[in-house]
Amino acid sequence: MIKIAVDTVGGDFGVNTTVYGACLAMEEQKDLSCLFFGSPREIKAALPEFSDMNRVKIIESNNEITDDDHALKAVRRKQNSALVRGIKAVSEGQADSFISAGSSGAIYLASMFYIGTIEGIERPAAVSILPTVSKESPYYLLIDAGANIASKPKYLSDYGKFGSAIAKQLLGVTEPRVGLLNIGTEPSKGDDFRKAAYANLENEQTINFIGNVEPTDILKGTNEIVLTDGFTGNILLKSVEGTSQILLNDLLAVITTEESLDKKTLAVVERAIQQRVNRFTNEDIGGGFILGIKAPIVITHGSADEKMFKNSVLTAARLAVNNAFKDY
Amino acid sequence: MIKIAVDTVGGDFGVNTTVYGACLAMEEQKDLSCLFFGSPREIKAALPEFSDMNRVKIIESNNEITDDDHALKAVRRKQNSALVRGIKAVSEGQADSFISAGSSGAIYLASMFYIGTIEGIERPAAVSILPTVSKESPYYLLIDAGANIASKPKYLSDYGKFGSAIAKQLLGVTEPRVGLLNIGTEPSKGDDFRKAAYANLENEQTINFIGNVEPTDILKGTNEIVLTDGFTGNILLKSVEGTSQILLNDLLAVITTEESLDKKTLAVVERAIQQRVNRFTNEDIGGGFILGIKAPIVITHGSADEKMFKNSVLTAARLAVNNAFKDY
Repeated sequence: MIKIAVDTVGGDFGVNTTVYGACLAMEEQKDLSCLFFGSPREIKAALPEFSDMNRVKIIESNNEITDDDHALKAVRRKQNSALVRGIKAVSEGQADSFISAGSSGAIYLASMFYIGTIEGIERPAAVSILPTVSKESPYYLLIDAGANIASKPKYLSDYGKFGSAIAKQLLGVTEPRVGLLNIGTEPSKGDDFRKAAYANLENEQTINFIGNVEPTDILKGTNEIVLTDGFTGNILLKSVEGTSQILLNDLLAVITTEESLDKKTLAVVERAIQQRVNRFTNEDIGGGFILGIKAPIVITHGSADEKMFKNSVLTAARLAVNNAFKDY
Repeated sequence: MIKIAVDTVGGDFGVNTTVYGACLAMEEQKDLSCLFFGSPREIKAALPEFSDMNRVKIIESNNEITDDDHALKAVRRKQNSALVRGIKAVSEGQADSFISAGSSGAIYLASMFYIGTIEGIERPAAVSILPTVSKESPYYLLIDAGANIASKPKYLSDYGKFGSAIAKQLLGVTEPRVGLLNIGTEPSKGDDFRKAAYANLENEQTINFIGNVEPTDILKGTNEIVLTDGFTGNILLKSVEGTSQILLNDLLAVITTEESLDKKTLAVVERAIQQRVNRFTNEDIGGGFILGIKAPIVITHGSADEKMFKNSVLTAARLAVNNAFKDY
């Protein structure tokens, strides 16, 4: 049985969405159990009829961390919050991974404090699991998607090594191809950070470094791991998600208002567009995770709905059985 | 009469595409004339039947600059190339603006040497004119889209001022809203570069600074000018263009292979998608331009087709009558 610690409080939509989403995940995957942290009264009220109570455990927490809190102070002072209690449950071996839609800064710090970082990783990174249009290589890991805006070239080599170990199992590839995000493919491209990172990565024998990659290459599926600093990674993430969401929804709005068109055909087209919205706004995968913590910590969007939260719980379950977190 | 110096040689498709595209622009706008730089024999052969020869002038050039050339050496040694001759024609007052699909590095350097930079601009920037989904604010200027990867916070204030002056006329807005590209909207967000740039911009009385903006905001049309360093700007540009192009073409391919659907409806949907491909891959606007040179220098994609080249010539014409280049 895989045990997931669930912060039921974090996120824009609260306990009904998180609990319902986690129960959908348990319904889909029978070797999954959840530890729900939050208000027992609210959690019980939110449990759907189909819940399997043998796989549900409820643990009371209060004094919750909000987005208005200072992350560092909140993690130190609000020891009884769902966020801190859930992460502590992982560190104490009561759960295999943790999932939250709450404050990513607080989750990041609490994970470092209570679970600790992996040997060889100085600063943990945020990883986003992002889609491509390639059938052969449908996903890639973006590292760092926003944790360290003051990155160092050396960090990227470390992320490349640990990221490759995770990707082998998570994406099912034997030799994940590692690319450095840059503004051109030639080795001489980019600023001093990129040039130093390139030189380090080229000398790294244990990873399959394929050189510089541009956003267009990545979307076509040229590689399974994209390395960059947290500032650039966050811009890339938000550009790709934002463009997909805004452009496709705009298209959907225009098409569906065309009164004179054949309804059956429109329905097929709408479904094709909606599938891409779900895929490219990351609803299908759910959350990303922190790389460099000794256990899987999954963080999803504050705006995650039930379906996205469900998918985040399933990602937390997949990572719980990933050998990289154990053997590294 | 607006006079455009056209490099007929640069670009992937050569003289037939550039000359035909420029003639389409003259057909659309009757107060436009072109000086074609390149091989007179090839240019004459490429002129379409509808050309108005009263508005065409052909100037022989040879010893052309290619993408394999070292930009600095090429600009110094290949004085008789279409690229250098065309830029010199602008500096000598024979033309109002210059357009090329050739090496952007060589165009940038030749413009600095032969036309010179505007007082108050230390390093010229690349500007892309990019689309939004907003009807009220359909375009924005991305500054810097890739010229200076080693930028300084001070440059951004200068770009904000000069960019606002250009945007007033080019985009027809009285007080262009200026945003700083960042990974969050709070003033404290981002690295040291962003924080210093924010502080400078906030103190700049002459521009309408609205604070930090994220990629999603920008696409929705929250502002007309986006300031960033050349590295991040180039990543944003390629992410937005790449995502639009790849995602929409993938959708188009899937939809058009659905045999059973109503053909008339599919045709309408295809047209709506294709319109968005054209708009978001910048075919509709054509090239970007260099900010900080004393005359309008337009650079378009090497892969520009006739239609995109035509639109680039029209952009060069619009910038030729822009007071900012004269009064600044």
